[in-house]
Amino acid sequence: MSMDMTFLGTGSAYPSPHRGASALVLRTDGECWLFDCGEGTQTQLMKSQLRAGRITKIFISHLHGDHLFGLPGLLCTVSLNSNADPQQNLNCVELYGPRGLRKFLRVTLGLSGSQLLFPYAVHELEPTTDQCPEEGQLSQELTADSGPLHPQEQPGRTIPLDVISDSYLLLEDKKFIVKAFRLFHRIPSFGFCIQEHDRPGRLKTELLKELGLKPGPQYGRLKAGESIVLENGRLVLPSEVLEETIPGRKVCILGDCTSVLGKEPLRMCSGADVLVHEATLGNEHRERAMEHGHSTPAMAAAVARACCARRLVLYHFSQRYKPNSLQKDGEEDVSELKRQAEEELQDGRVEVILAEDFMTVPIPLRRQKS
Amino acid sequence: MSMDMTFLGTGSAYPSPHRGASALVLRTDGECWLFDCGEGTQTQLMKSQLRAGRITKIFISHLHGDHLFGLPGLLCTVSLNSNADPQQNLNCVELYGPRGLRKFLRVTLGLSGSQLLFPYAVHELEPTTDQCPEEGQLSQELTADSGPLHPQEQPGRTIPLDVISDSYLLLEDKKFIVKAFRLFHRIPSFGFCIQEHDRPGRLKTELLKELGLKPGPQYGRLKAGESIVLENGRLVLPSEVLEETIPGRKVCILGDCTSVLGKEPLRMCSGADVLVHEATLGNEHRERAMEHGHSTPAMAAAVARACCARRLVLYHFSQRYKPNSLQKDGEEDVSELKRQAEEELQDGRVEVILAEDFMTVPIPLRRQKS
Ligand SMILES: [Zn+2]
Ligand SMILES: [Zn+2]
Ligand SMILES: [Zn+2]
Ligand SMILES: [Zn+2]
Repeated sequence: MSMDMTFLGTGSAYPSPHRGASALVLRTDGECWLFDCGEGTQTQLMKSQLRAGRITKIFISHLHGDHLFGLPGLLCTVSLNSNADPQQNLNCVELYGPRGLRKFLRVTLGLSGSQLLFPYAVHELEPTTDQCPEEGQLSQELTADSGPLHPQEQPGRTIPLDVISDSYLLLEDKKFIVKAFRLFHRIPSFGFCIQEHDRPGRLKTELLKELGLKPGPQYGRLKAGESIVLENGRLVLPSEVLEETIPGRKVCILGDCTSVLGKEPLRMCSGADVLVHEATLGNEHRERAMEHGHSTPAMAAAVARACCARRLVLYHFSQRYKPNSLQKDGEEDVSELKRQAEEELQDGRVEVILAEDFMTVPIPLRRQKS
Repeated sequence: MSMDMTFLGTGSAYPSPHRGASALVLRTDGECWLFDCGEGTQTQLMKSQLRAGRITKIFISHLHGDHLFGLPGLLCTVSLNSNADPQQNLNCVELYGPRGLRKFLRVTLGLSGSQLLFPYAVHELEPTTDQCPEEGQLSQELTADSGPLHPQEQPGRTIPLDVISDSYLLLEDKKFIVKAFRLFHRIPSFGFCIQEHDRPGRLKTELLKELGLKPGPQYGRLKAGESIVLENGRLVLPSEVLEETIPGRKVCILGDCTSVLGKEPLRMCSGADVLVHEATLGNEHRERAMEHGHSTPAMAAAVARACCARRLVLYHFSQRYKPNSLQKDGEEDVSELKRQAEEELQDGRVEVILAEDFMTVPIPLRRQKS
């Protein structure tokens, strides 16, 4: 199964002509999951190779405008274009985000008279008070989603923090388990851990033939992890006849933050194939970054190290950092942010990547031990 | 006083890479008034020569997303950049739009934790039930702006229709009087008539000298329309010593519509220097256009003729009409829309202009009769 990640916006605070506001798409087998949706995301999508109609799930890390304000327009445009795309998914679009997201959509879609051709459901994460300074907490009055549902809205879950695992279980299906965890920012912010399930290795068909087994239902049972007994009484264990298990990939995408809350989330992200972390300002602006609830490359690198990530992708850059191709003499060099993260990761076992708008990062299966 | 109008988005339904969503700026003496604010308007502003910090008033024709969804982001970015621009206007930004706009901003700015560096006030126009089909009317429940004001929100007026003039008086100051009027669309939509006051002509200084009057307070009184009596008893009338009155300019900007409601608004727009009217689809799609609450070039031209406009600017084109510079073989030709409007206006006394993103239309003073 192919898997990759495309950045639609890598700028912080607001969209600019050279860096869109936060949005990235994780793609597996043609299904697209959108993470954050700053203003202009629908236009960035149109410029990319991706198809808006393939978006089945949307995750919003936090409610700051540069991660959210593109959402109502994106849903409307996905709906408008759904006639044009016969492969359009008209199933329920599932949205996950902080408390308040449900009301945001209900009010913006409602007041604009927007009718969607598909249903949607908003599953809200209950933040805790230690995720932000007091002034960043939203009153119950502001987030209360009283009143009737939007005509296309289906009831969503309200997901509290699971205190034992220090995380939120968002979804689990045949392929993935997705959890969220808490970050510290100016307002409650979340990170997402997308864990692909391990899959059994291939059947050793030569060996099965030697044992006298022919392709059929027994192959399926072995692959599903069941033992079987041959006619001659021989017990066949799955471990005997299966190649090594194919480990599931792990992708961790963190919203704006100065830090991850708790130790459990770092364990959850342990060994991530890709860790996506913001780096709004360079190390020399550490104080200013933290004042605004943000991170520097060194701070991002420390998180990557703490969870032994294989690759660290930096994004959410201050608009002062133009892409290298547009950078003029005397302007800040975004490559410096990469150097700063690498310096922190000295040993060089973690690959550092600077995200740019429209960059696609492949997430291949791990090479198996030989 | 210079006056011009810059189109920031000329596409309908959604912003695309070749046409932004609806937004235009009317500029007089460095002050900018924004009409509609589709998603991406802030980025279009950045690409233009205009400065977001100069926006003092915002008019929203109707609450469809392609005219509205850029508004919260625009306000946030104007605020963010206001430190950088010492000439930034930190006075109250006045917003005018249909009932529901106040709640839209209160909820979007509130949930996103957006703090502005300037106050704002939303003045809501009360629509009437004949402005749209029944399904386009918003329930009181949806528009109710209960709850506390946003920290930077100042109380705004609620403006009912003035039945006598069939219009809404939005503002009147030393330079302008601005009124709104009702349009028929899928949801309540409005047009805006911006009327510059007439100004007295120049003083005939040669004549004043002959009469023995020297520059001083008496000049001001004559210019203000007062008569004065000379020492020798001679009465001097302003009309004797003033050149012809400089007629104020009139700019009419209509939101999405199939028609103007009532006859009074056409009289109000009579002789408009510029009439800005949507033309979403070509004449050959008249039925489809009307079904969606929109106009064709012929319909726009009929309005321009009915109010004897001097210039008709068409905008809000279906995204199928690319700008001529990007049009490929076999694609619809936007110039055809101009031809269709001109055909309807046969006599050729009305100049037809096709708006394009970033086009600036000057609005000069009328040449005086000689
Ligand atoms: Zn951000
Ligand atoms: Zn943020
Ligand atoms: Zn429109
Ligand atoms: Zn409309």
